[in-house]
Amino acid sequence: MAKAPVLTPQADDFPRWYQDVINKAELADNGPVRGTMVIRPYGYGIWERMQQELDARIKAAGARNAYFPLFIPQSYLAKEAEHVEGFAPELAVVTHGGGKQLEEPAVVRPTSEMIINDYFAKWVQSYRDLPLLINQWANVVRWEMRPRVFLRTTEFLWQEGHTAHATYEDARDYAARIHRDVYADFMVNTLAIDVVLGRKSPAERFAGAINTLTLEGMMRDGKALQMGTSHELGQNFARAFDTRYLSKDGSRELVWQTSWGSSTRMVGGLIMSHGDDNGLRVPPRLAPVQVVVLAIKDDEAVLAKVREIGAALTAAGIRAEVDDRTDTPFGRRAVDWELKGVPARIEVGPRDLAAGTAMLARRIPGGKEPVAIDALPTLLPGVLEEDQALLLRQSRERREERTTDVRTIEDAVAAAAAGGWARIPWSELGAEGEARLAQDAVTVRCLVAEDGSVPESDDAPGTIAIVGRAY
Amino acid sequence: MAKAPVLTPQADDFPRWYQDVINKAELADNGPVRGTMVIRPYGYGIWERMQQELDARIKAAGARNAYFPLFIPQSYLAKEAEHVEGFAPELAVVTHGGGKQLEEPAVVRPTSEMIINDYFAKWVQSYRDLPLLINQWANVVRWEMRPRVFLRTTEFLWQEGHTAHATYEDARDYAARIHRDVYADFMVNTLAIDVVLGRKSPAERFAGAINTLTLEGMMRDGKALQMGTSHELGQNFARAFDTRYLSKDGSRELVWQTSWGSSTRMVGGLIMSHGDDNGLRVPPRLAPVQVVVLAIKDDEAVLAKVREIGAALTAAGIRAEVDDRTDTPFGRRAVDWELKGVPARIEVGPRDLAAGTAMLARRIPGGKEPVAIDALPTLLPGVLEEDQALLLRQSRERREERTTDVRTIEDAVAAAAAGGWARIPWSELGAEGEARLAQDAVTVRCLVAEDGSVPESDDAPGTIAIVGRAY
Repeated sequence: MAKAPVLTPQADDFPRWYQDVINKAELADNGPVRGTMVIRPYGYGIWERMQQELDARIKAAGARNAYFPLFIPQSYLAKEAEHVEGFAPELAVVTHGGGKQLEEPAVVRPTSEMIINDYFAKWVQSYRDLPLLINQWANVVRWEMRPRVFLRTTEFLWQEGHTAHATYEDARDYAARIHRDVYADFMVNTLAIDVVLGRKSPAERFAGAINTLTLEGMMRDGKALQMGTSHELGQNFARAFDTRYLSKDGSRELVWQTSWGSSTRMVGGLIMSHGDDNGLRVPPRLAPVQVVVLAIKDDEAVLAKVREIGAALTAAGIRAEVDDRTDTPFGRRAVDWELKGVPARIEVGPRDLAAGTAMLARRIPGGKEPVAIDALPTLLPGVLEEDQALLLRQSRERREERTTDVRTIEDAVAAAAAGGWARIPWSELGAEGEARLAQDAVTVRCLVAEDGSVPESDDAPGTIAIVGRAY
Repeated sequence: MAKAPVLTPQADDFPRWYQDVINKAELADNGPVRGTMVIRPYGYGIWERMQQELDARIKAAGARNAYFPLFIPQSYLAKEAEHVEGFAPELAVVTHGGGKQLEEPAVVRPTSEMIINDYFAKWVQSYRDLPLLINQWANVVRWEMRPRVFLRTTEFLWQEGHTAHATYEDARDYAARIHRDVYADFMVNTLAIDVVLGRKSPAERFAGAINTLTLEGMMRDGKALQMGTSHELGQNFARAFDTRYLSKDGSRELVWQTSWGSSTRMVGGLIMSHGDDNGLRVPPRLAPVQVVVLAIKDDEAVLAKVREIGAALTAAGIRAEVDDRTDTPFGRRAVDWELKGVPARIEVGPRDLAAGTAMLARRIPGGKEPVAIDALPTLLPGVLEEDQALLLRQSRERREERTTDVRTIEDAVAAAAAGGWARIPWSELGAEGEARLAQDAVTVRCLVAEDGSVPESDDAPGTIAIVGRAY
């Protein structure tokens, strides 16, 4: 008799599968204020690992963390015209504080360009102060009409980088460095998502930017998810805030700026890139728990052995957890760890002990086999790296299989409707074609060069638009 | 000729010295909305180290991190009467979101008991779910009428722990464990502040708690700073939210709870505990930069050597930074690192190189001496531990010298006015005496037992009240 599925199968209803995974793997709950979310410990553990991995790369790129206020005076928002237009409909406004109506309402930051630039204008005096490279880990609020946990929430967690440079070239190169060495390196090598790196079309750029670099991942339903962006802001904000530096030759020059962000949305991307009908599959390099060691039953020797194995794995540098909750049936616990996508389960019962073996269940390729207990600390690192590589390969193959080269807008729409992406020459599409696609809810995800690199401008010859439906 | 002091001397005007240090060491700026702050990279680096150290201890105590929404429906606050009364005057209220007036206004969390308990009531079903041990790193907002950077800000950063237990004893023991193994261990052994552990008098308890444990540090002006608190909440919130578990024998029981928090206020405590007229002194175990290696002048061999020393120190596990900004005068850079309180400076010039030595300047005890460059990686760890111990000893000696045993309220007020604390039998003082002290802005910081331990109840025989002025 077939088991009743724990989750709605992906093929039946992908959005419902997504919500099922979030509930059953205990990743998050909806918050009481519409569009907000409660990130539960397992979901937050995944986010913490994302933070650690990104933070190390951000620091290696020379940026330092700081913290700017949650509340921004409403008047600040009006300083950069395009920017305020982009964010005005999404703002949350604080009108009362300390029991009184405020003289000037404060908005809850939807992003921090405005407040950070106010301080950059004070802190930047001389060329010696440049480049100024700042990052912030924070919560931001953008009122969402159609919220979806992790993907689109009224409040979300993110990092936002903000930098000021002496020259256009230095700002451009830094935005590209973050795009490549921080975001792409993390997403490909840790998240195991084979993201496409490109630049946004003018219509899809960040409000106030002169160039937006993006990383687009293909989800298992063929839709795109924007996983992170890095913007060249040019001198738009510098002019609005009069942020100038004294150059070596004594002139007062406007700075050139960048900003860049990635958020809890990546947790949604992780779920939809790697999850299957049995739940999540977490890439080992990211996984907060790489290996769980389960006691099959309440037996003294078994309990002692699982703890011993757990300690040996931890000593070997593996993120291991022991599951000795034998007052919950073993089958239920095994399904639970499968739902949570822990890469490897080591299952230990009395019979295994006698043989000096345990069952190794691998979540990512699937399958179970007995292994010698003593060999686990040396065996598992290789197993985990194999699983990491497999997830990335599956992500790349899916993207390649479901991406079609087309010449017409009709074919592009058809490719998106079939659950995939289309590649179409940007010269054939243009802003006009982009507007046509929008009628079918298809968007230009990014522009890439023929050789797959990031084009230097929107109108570089041979530029290709990658289009599809998106979250 | 004496140098003009960079900072207002502590003896002249302690509050102004405090503000000077914050500005000159580039720790923080005031934010544009009254009472908010911008934490600059060096200040945030100190906070990040506090977070790392605390987070490791919190995880060792079995709690897991999670994240709850910033916005709480206004109606939630009314659920626990004492709690809402405590926080109502300090709330920030969001009335508009997404361009519309909200049906129900949302408050910005002043603390998260209310929203977390709403979820605890859903998540706790059976005794198997207990204890439920959750921690959150977040920003909170309490509207401040008399703001002071780090000490009292409208928005601040903190961690707040929230737990649910099956029994009174288990909750009581966990609150005590956090108080001792997380907070006291961190404050004494990392911050080098000789905090006093005690329980709050009933008048000073957290709104909604049945017991509040506190850690009080004596600042260099003799005033007290509450550095962290751990609360037993009893069943007050469990009743308000009907948070019950199915016990082993099948009855539905209310849980027992704790909550506990520490915040960016500790940065203020660090400044006021260890700072002197030359700036901050950061305890080496906490310091984001333990050692700075300075190139005295722009000389190729010198620059190569400071980088080599920096790399050798980093390889030896020391948090080292290289200062090769030779376009800024050496004297200015030396004063700047002194202001920032970096424990050790290694100064390298061309003459030193020839001798194979460098100058080692020690910020904590003061003084400079030449040391062999090759010996630095083995010498410095011991130097840093010595400095760590010295700061703690100075903190303890100051507290002991400035604490007086008294029998009368008049003498207690006099001791506080002289810049110190008084110890007075709680049986002599009582709630009535406490109200009298308040007229002179003196408060009961905590209650301790005669042997210095934490009393089991407010009326345990021999209980002593420690009283003083406080931040």
